[in-house]
Amino acid sequence: MIDFPYISNICKPTKSKIIMLVADGLGGMYHPDYGSSELEAARLPNLDKLAATSSCGVTTPVLPGITPGSGPGHMGLFGYDPIKYLLGRGILEGIGIGAPISQGDVVARGNFCTLDEKGNILDRRAGRLTTEEGQFITKKLNSIKVDGVDVEVHHVMGYRFVLVLKGKNLLDSITDTDPQITKIKPLTCQALSNEAKNTANAVNSFVSKANAVFGDMNGSSKGLLLRGFSSLPSLPNFNSTYNLKSVAIASYPMYKGIAELMGMDIIKDLNGFQEEINALKTKLNEYDFFFLHYKPADSAGEDSDFNRKVKALEDLDSYLQQITDMNPDVLVVCGDHSTPSYMGSHSWHPVPCLVKSKYSQPSDGVFTEMSCRNSELGSIKAQELMLNVLAHAGKLNKFGP
Amino acid sequence: MIDFPYISNICKPTKSKIIMLVADGLGGMYHPDYGSSELEAARLPNLDKLAATSSCGVTTPVLPGITPGSGPGHMGLFGYDPIKYLLGRGILEGIGIGAPISQGDVVARGNFCTLDEKGNILDRRAGRLTTEEGQFITKKLNSIKVDGVDVEVHHVMGYRFVLVLKGKNLLDSITDTDPQITKIKPLTCQALSNEAKNTANAVNSFVSKANAVFGDMNGSSKGLLLRGFSSLPSLPNFNSTYNLKSVAIASYPMYKGIAELMGMDIIKDLNGFQEEINALKTKLNEYDFFFLHYKPADSAGEDSDFNRKVKALEDLDSYLQQITDMNPDVLVVCGDHSTPSYMGSHSWHPVPCLVKSKYSQPSDGVFTEMSCRNSELGSIKAQELMLNVLAHAGKLNKFGP
Repeated sequence: MIDFPYISNICKPTKSKIIMLVADGLGGMYHPDYGSSELEAARLPNLDKLAATSSCGVTTPVLPGITPGSGPGHMGLFGYDPIKYLLGRGILEGIGIGAPISQGDVVARGNFCTLDEKGNILDRRAGRLTTEEGQFITKKLNSIKVDGVDVEVHHVMGYRFVLVLKGKNLLDSITDTDPQITKIKPLTCQALSNEAKNTANAVNSFVSKANAVFGDMNGSSKGLLLRGFSSLPSLPNFNSTYNLKSVAIASYPMYKGIAELMGMDIIKDLNGFQEEINALKTKLNEYDFFFLHYKPADSAGEDSDFNRKVKALEDLDSYLQQITDMNPDVLVVCGDHSTPSYMGSHSWHPVPCLVKSKYSQPSDGVFTEMSCRNSELGSIKAQELMLNVLAHAGKLNKFGP
Repeated sequence: MIDFPYISNICKPTKSKIIMLVADGLGGMYHPDYGSSELEAARLPNLDKLAATSSCGVTTPVLPGITPGSGPGHMGLFGYDPIKYLLGRGILEGIGIGAPISQGDVVARGNFCTLDEKGNILDRRAGRLTTEEGQFITKKLNSIKVDGVDVEVHHVMGYRFVLVLKGKNLLDSITDTDPQITKIKPLTCQALSNEAKNTANAVNSFVSKANAVFGDMNGSSKGLLLRGFSSLPSLPNFNSTYNLKSVAIASYPMYKGIAELMGMDIIKDLNGFQEEINALKTKLNEYDFFFLHYKPADSAGEDSDFNRKVKALEDLDSYLQQITDMNPDVLVVCGDHSTPSYMGSHSWHPVPCLVKSKYSQPSDGVFTEMSCRNSELGSIKAQELMLNVLAHAGKLNKFGP
């Protein structure tokens, strides 16, 4: 948790309701073709009105200049040090498809690839492997037995899968088999400590048996590449740390997965933001902290689509009234990272945020990157946002006599 | 000390005089009934004029969202990490009344309470116990002898007292006897480690003998409640760390006590700010760092009295000329925390500060929360202020070759 060991000592239970709306990829930057950032271009009457009576600021997800993945981006918002509690690639991919993963399992991200007659990698993504082909191969691979270890293969889509090793004394301190380049053979998995040798042996045994399975199949020679071996981290529990009862309301498995790791309850089978808002209404009396996730702004930014990102932000604005009508004691609008359409990717830029409560102070601000930075909260670390949120909820006792 | 291990290496002695005026509870926030913060409402011609030629900023006492007590609030201003050097409640209460406390003593905050016939707590504050009654009880309790430990009871006022245990191998890792609720019996003190068992035994022996004393007294059944057992922390010395000769000029014992823990000299028997200013004049040639404490703004904020806080700030402004007339090389005006009258308590809000020296840069600023935040120093941690102060005093050599 944030570098403040006394947080649980000073967090008291209250009846306050906190809604934290995380707009994925919320922040942007100036786009030379349009002469503004997406937030500056968007018509956001509801967000601007809210910002004018909220405590606004910008959050730096990890450190200045550091572009976070979805894992660190979200961990920070909930007060977890995103450097200390880094989720491995295998774990994030696994929870992203809702694969059952337990403490002590070792999980890897996998690619099906194609190999030439010498066994060198031709294509790291196995050409145009269809999802049906991927599912077929996955089924075959799940029949493989490895001594002392249960191996599960979960198909993601197309050429992508997740490998889960379950068993005793497994360790994730082992090397990738994916060299991330072509024209060489897949690497042998190596242990980075004596204690991890049995895990590396299990991986190599699985790969060898998988190659035999591929050999029996018709068509071009297939292989597999594994990277990002990782285990579940031991995370402080969100609810007990902050004295909250929390629930995650999100459509995408990855965000539900991250929330579940922190100890939040999860609402299943939601599809799109209106369904999420409906679920929020239904659950309003059951919980006191609501993590509500909005995805479209990030996707548009990733696709370098300035206008679609503007539209996604305007859509979010039009949903806002339904949320403010629920009269939460604290409403937070924030983002896990910036996704400027100019860059077409996540970026390091600080992300606008607002905290609305009875302790918010009025300003003449609007909800843009520059206006938020010059507002009450100023520029803070993402992991410090949660402290402000708890303060606004009246949940923090004084620190020290 | 602040997370900068080289501070002593680069601090050089100079003839610079530094006056740090700490206005307790200086910062505030927007009050909806008045349409502004207290600093914004107050007429502060001298402070505003000073701010316009000073380096201004805001200090965050501990972390964003965290409301500090007086201990952490002051520790930060003098460059001490307020989380690392947390003073216990017993210690702060003890130094607050000037009780003689040595390294290794264990100190608790005590309440006289009333108990019903079954020994359950009726009133945690013993009704309307007068100071005379409190003094009478204290005198009785000071006759109690406990094996191997010297026990001292110091009366504070009304129902409040301080217990000091002096002896060998005493440890403060023991639990409170004050349950902080009524209708149950006072708790037994328990050791949180094997090494602390003799301390817990001494406490329980004292409580048992005190109950016998109370039993011999007429009137409603009395008892006592103890909490916040703590020992003196081992603090780096302010003078040797910064190469300064420092003195604290304050009327209230608690602030003198904190300063004394840091190694500052203390001026005794001051009553009110004019007497403090007089003492400052007298001592100007003897020291090079002066911690000058102004209390009334905090008290008014605590009492939710917007107008009285405005008046307290205007009073401070009217004293200012006497201080600037002394021509210190560096004049600092800062606060240990905010005390918005809207909240009627300490709060987490960043606190305005100014540093005036020959290196200050002019601005069009005034001395308010928002103007200071958007000024030269920006938003910094309280424990970083001292570095700025030393820099303005010309006391810091270059760091690194």
